[in-house]
Amino acid sequence: MNIILASTSTLFGGEYLEYLTEEIVQLFEGSDEIIFIPFARPGGISHDEYTQKARSFFDKINIKVKGLHEFDDKAEALNNAKGFFTGGGNTFLLVKTLHEENLMSVLKSNVESGKPYLGCSAGSNIGGQNMKTTNDMPIVYPPSFECMGLVPFNINPHYLDPSPELKHNGETRETRIKEFLTQNDVKVVGLREGNWIRRKADRITVEGAELTRIFEKDKEPYEIESGTEL
Amino acid sequence: MNIILASTSTLFGGEYLEYLTEEIVQLFEGSDEIIFIPFARPGGISHDEYTQKARSFFDKINIKVKGLHEFDDKAEALNNAKGFFTGGGNTFLLVKTLHEENLMSVLKSNVESGKPYLGCSAGSNIGGQNMKTTNDMPIVYPPSFECMGLVPFNINPHYLDPSPELKHNGETRETRIKEFLTQNDVKVVGLREGNWIRRKADRITVEGAELTRIFEKDKEPYEIESGTEL
Repeated sequence: MNIILASTSTLFGGEYLEYLTEEIVQLFEGSDEIIFIPFARPGGISHDEYTQKARSFFDKINIKVKGLHEFDDKAEALNNAKGFFTGGGNTFLLVKTLHEENLMSVLKSNVESGKPYLGCSAGSNIGGQNMKTTNDMPIVYPPSFECMGLVPFNINPHYLDPSPELKHNGETRETRIKEFLTQNDVKVVGLREGNWIRRKADRITVEGAELTRIFEKDKEPYEIESGTEL
Repeated sequence: MNIILASTSTLFGGEYLEYLTEEIVQLFEGSDEIIFIPFARPGGISHDEYTQKARSFFDKINIKVKGLHEFDDKAEALNNAKGFFTGGGNTFLLVKTLHEENLMSVLKSNVESGKPYLGCSAGSNIGGQNMKTTNDMPIVYPPSFECMGLVPFNINPHYLDPSPELKHNGETRETRIKEFLTQNDVKVVGLREGNWIRRKADRITVEGAELTRIFEKDKEPYEIESGTEL
């Protein structure tokens, strides 16, 4: 497999996908066209506009982008594609759409066959075992929380450290992930913004400028450095 | 109906339920025993320990507390009870448990018959139309997101204003609720900590020290004052 699962598409103050440019060029080497999956976006901009946003980045590196929503037979489009990019938004909406249109398993088998896959945020969540560690609001009811399982763990994108100043009684991110582990035995990778997971064949590493926080059942959470194998 | 749906159980620096004491005394006037529903709590403390926490507050106002988990026939226990308190935790776990044990509709009909109901956080979410505006992580998969609909809207507990300093690319609470409204036509009450919904018969008001932020489909969000009817 040949995969990037990134915490975020955009760093604070940066341009869309800019910080990942070099990695994305390597990921899609040899592909001159990819399919963009815009289904996570719940509003504000249309699927066409969201695809155009992806296109304006990929134009710069000479890769054409088609939106999956443009195809009548979406499964066939995935099977004919050379690579994939799933953008962020709401994971519940993305997972609901992919399951209801029977596309989750088609995308999974195409990525498992070696076609390059880039996910950001919600698009990274669906690379994990299931979507039970998303930060998103459950605005729609998906037929299942199961995802592609391209990596043998779950991802928590936009991982955020507790803020000691916050006089607020909502759960911290760490508390939420520990709650997940009371109900599930799946490793969780708390991916801070600026970090990403890289899978090349069987080698899976965490990359980026920040440390990455790992949560496992019945263990204290711990930090790993960029470049560490997972 | 006779209901309090509170944003939080505990104000920053305060004791459990302390800020709501006077309201709770009024709500449960005439009841000397209530049932506590501890199912939202995913870990850290047991159902017994969580019930003990509720009991230690209600002892002070001379109301006995039994945990719903103590009963073999939980539906019968709800039907025989004089009042209810559902504590906070994870809304997905609470809703899954109530649906799987067929208790959601039993609790609903008991509250609709006039028995007093107190909910905090997750326990307030289940008083709304559905749980699609919870802040919680989807750590388990409930058979449905539908809730009791004790009020004709949804609640977003622990409502948090955007923090302009935060250099983080995750969605703000306001963005999340607006995303909900692209997929659903249900009013959302953004309940800041310290505020609660009070329903007495057909009169529903918002109470507490803070303004409350209201979100409706195709409208700009707006603020209402304490005491306003909903």
